[in-house]
Amino acid sequence: MFEKLLIANRGEIALRVARACRELGIRTVAVHSTVDRDSAVVRYADESVCIGPAASRHSYLNAAAIIEAARQTGAGAIHPGYGFLSEDPDFAEICADNGLVFVGPRPEVMAVLGDKSRARALMRDAGLPLLPGSVETLATVGEARAVADEIGYPVIIKVAAGGGGRGMTVVWSAADFARAYAHTRTVARAVFADDRVYVERYLPQARHVEVQVLCDGHGGGVHLGTRDCSVQRRHQKLVEEGPAPALSAGTLDAIAAAALRGALSVGYSGAGTVEFLVDEAERFHFMEINCRIQVEHPVTEMITGVDLVHEQLHLASGAPLRIRQDEVQLRGVAIECRVNVEDPERDFLPTPGRLDRFQPPAGPFTRVDTHGTPGYVVGPHYDSLLAKVVVWAPERTLALDRLERALEEFDIAGPGVHTTIPFIRRVLDDARFRKGRYSTDLVDRLLRDADTPAKPPVDRTGEPAAPTAR
Amino acid sequence: MFEKLLIANRGEIALRVARACRELGIRTVAVHSTVDRDSAVVRYADESVCIGPAASRHSYLNAAAIIEAARQTGAGAIHPGYGFLSEDPDFAEICADNGLVFVGPRPEVMAVLGDKSRARALMRDAGLPLLPGSVETLATVGEARAVADEIGYPVIIKVAAGGGGRGMTVVWSAADFARAYAHTRTVARAVFADDRVYVERYLPQARHVEVQVLCDGHGGGVHLGTRDCSVQRRHQKLVEEGPAPALSAGTLDAIAAAALRGALSVGYSGAGTVEFLVDEAERFHFMEINCRIQVEHPVTEMITGVDLVHEQLHLASGAPLRIRQDEVQLRGVAIECRVNVEDPERDFLPTPGRLDRFQPPAGPFTRVDTHGTPGYVVGPHYDSLLAKVVVWAPERTLALDRLERALEEFDIAGPGVHTTIPFIRRVLDDARFRKGRYSTDLVDRLLRDADTPAKPPVDRTGEPAAPTAR
Repeated sequence: MFEKLLIANRGEIALRVARACRELGIRTVAVHSTVDRDSAVVRYADESVCIGPAASRHSYLNAAAIIEAARQTGAGAIHPGYGFLSEDPDFAEICADNGLVFVGPRPEVMAVLGDKSRARALMRDAGLPLLPGSVETLATVGEARAVADEIGYPVIIKVAAGGGGRGMTVVWSAADFARAYAHTRTVARAVFADDRVYVERYLPQARHVEVQVLCDGHGGGVHLGTRDCSVQRRHQKLVEEGPAPALSAGTLDAIAAAALRGALSVGYSGAGTVEFLVDEAERFHFMEINCRIQVEHPVTEMITGVDLVHEQLHLASGAPLRIRQDEVQLRGVAIECRVNVEDPERDFLPTPGRLDRFQPPAGPFTRVDTHGTPGYVVGPHYDSLLAKVVVWAPERTLALDRLERALEEFDIAGPGVHTTIPFIRRVLDDARFRKGRYSTDLVDRLLRDADTPAKPPVDRTGEPAAPTAR
Repeated sequence: MFEKLLIANRGEIALRVARACRELGIRTVAVHSTVDRDSAVVRYADESVCIGPAASRHSYLNAAAIIEAARQTGAGAIHPGYGFLSEDPDFAEICADNGLVFVGPRPEVMAVLGDKSRARALMRDAGLPLLPGSVETLATVGEARAVADEIGYPVIIKVAAGGGGRGMTVVWSAADFARAYAHTRTVARAVFADDRVYVERYLPQARHVEVQVLCDGHGGGVHLGTRDCSVQRRHQKLVEEGPAPALSAGTLDAIAAAALRGALSVGYSGAGTVEFLVDEAERFHFMEINCRIQVEHPVTEMITGVDLVHEQLHLASGAPLRIRQDEVQLRGVAIECRVNVEDPERDFLPTPGRLDRFQPPAGPFTRVDTHGTPGYVVGPHYDSLLAKVVVWAPERTLALDRLERALEEFDIAGPGVHTTIPFIRRVLDDARFRKGRYSTDLVDRLLRDADTPAKPPVDRTGEPAAPTAR
């Protein structure tokens, strides 16, 4: 095992990786932008290096500065977290060229799976069910539209270089296709510098179900059960839970087996997530493979007892998988919600500011991953995720009650600061959600539904309190 | 289920009970002394009532004031926590007389088990192995000494009304017996107003192993595995873990089965703990039954996934047990340590004061039960327990590493404030402890052992730092 690891990320995931290293006796190097110099991970890590100004492209996306920080500090490995450089095969290759272990799959596997269209073709070859649509990218509007007309509307136009919810357009009728196609390619060129697109059938009421896998690249692999991440706004997850509720055991087993087969077929190594859409008839369809630790990985950790970052580090060292499938036992239900610094009443506008008060919940079966502290200043430069509140219980109803309890005790306040907590409490209160019978349209339905006012905070006397920034 | 519950306690356990109630939709009443008026549970509970001045006998031991608070607020039940009135059968009876549910066993069962000598006789009748000694209390020094001479030294003289580590004297030779006997009775009269004593063989190198049980008083009962609490100083536990390490599965099963048999034989109801001493040959001997939630209950919760306070409340409502023995699955290892505000360098002298900094650890598989907050003032009036840090892992070595990681990140500082953390880190570092092969003499051996200096805090550059109040 490497002795020192550089964490090429920030926020809660950087701290989470640093804790794992501390437990394993691996020394840590935090890299940070100028605005993050007093961050929790900088205080926590053994060493820290400033790699540039606030803008990500100058710091957390600055491969050269990160490699140089690793060289200076003598780090032998780099953990990329999620986002930033975590799915960049070029960065993984630069690490290898510099003699650094990149904690993730091999660059060529990342490159293949990062091309969502190629991944789709490979998974088809591995026998995974796909949504109807094109397997090759579609170079002309005529070609693309022919596919759409054939499979029927609504369809979704996806950018091959996209993924993770970025770079896709839903088209509801043939009349809108040409404009949507042109728009998607323009955006793709601007954002991804790659305008190849493909077309799939769009399922408005599907469930987003994903499978956590661990593979060693030597043929060994296990899956660690499912997570349902259907509570999404604009393809960004807000609430995640596992196992996926209200699906038959047979379906869950079949999805997990397909996920592992798909990952093994491409020589995957490390921790990965295979994402599916599941329709109302419980038919499942491959969407994409994410080559990184997910934001929602604690859900799986609480159900399985497996520390996924420990396993990532173990696998990155080249060791064979040390968990057998029959040792993976799923116990109970875990639910995570993302506490973002955004105002749900203003279209989830980020509301950066100083946290005068910050006290996360605690208590039995409650985990909070956060880089927040009292006095922390949420800046405007990075994503608005401040904390993940994750609870576990033997069964789902208690897990929901526990999450409500935890969210209610989360004390966050600062001038102008809002969080997604009130909106998440609306989700938890929704009858469809409570029954486990919800799909990716839940958030939009809640936002449209004027009959569902935001749940007011309850003060300690049990009377509804005046709304506050809490 | 009752709709409103009064929590007749303070500190971390009061907050822990309040959280359980919140999850179950039970409204809570916190009672508090004048010095605790701004405490965490007072802020957390739905209502609060001041029941008297700081001295426990005027507040947390003031049964009349507590009953009156319940009457005023309309609470239907009282949870006594641990310590204070939790094992007082008279208080349980007063609750019943006032139409209040007391969360604990029936008063007559508490009375029987509170008399450690009677409990010993009853457990002998139920077939549990006892240490050699007297079953009846011993009214004269001649009678007592005859027992001691017969069973052989060392012996321990125990106060029938004692328990929980209070009221016992170890006698190493016949020459010291008479004085120790007289001393113990004098102390017993003063502290417990009851000077009956009995004599047992003393095992200097035994392990303290206890079993968590849940019984419904209608014949239903389960055990939830073992905890080892051998890391004790003056019979007060410092570190607890489960399952008890380095004992054969057969021994663990036999201890658990004996514990449940003993509890059922006296019509026990609620959550209880049956304590044993285990000798080097893995022979186990009944010690006592504690009629309350234990400080170390989170160890069992993390291993079994069962919320013991939820189950206490369920059983107190009169409902039958809802967990079958075959549903109790023990998973992994949990270790708890008690962070007391005491100076290990000065004979564990309490060091009350204001906490200028207070940030408990967090992260995967880490739970901290505490009433501390930044700015909290640890007063001189109550016991010095400030926080319990509990970790879980699939196996013991990782659990130890995780606990070290957690303790290292616990940031507590205030003028004159010391904690037991440095000493606990010495325990975790001890070779016998790491192997799981330790007994109740571990702490004394560590304290005697001049060759084991306290582990210095390590600063972020990896160099030993100057000692601080941290």
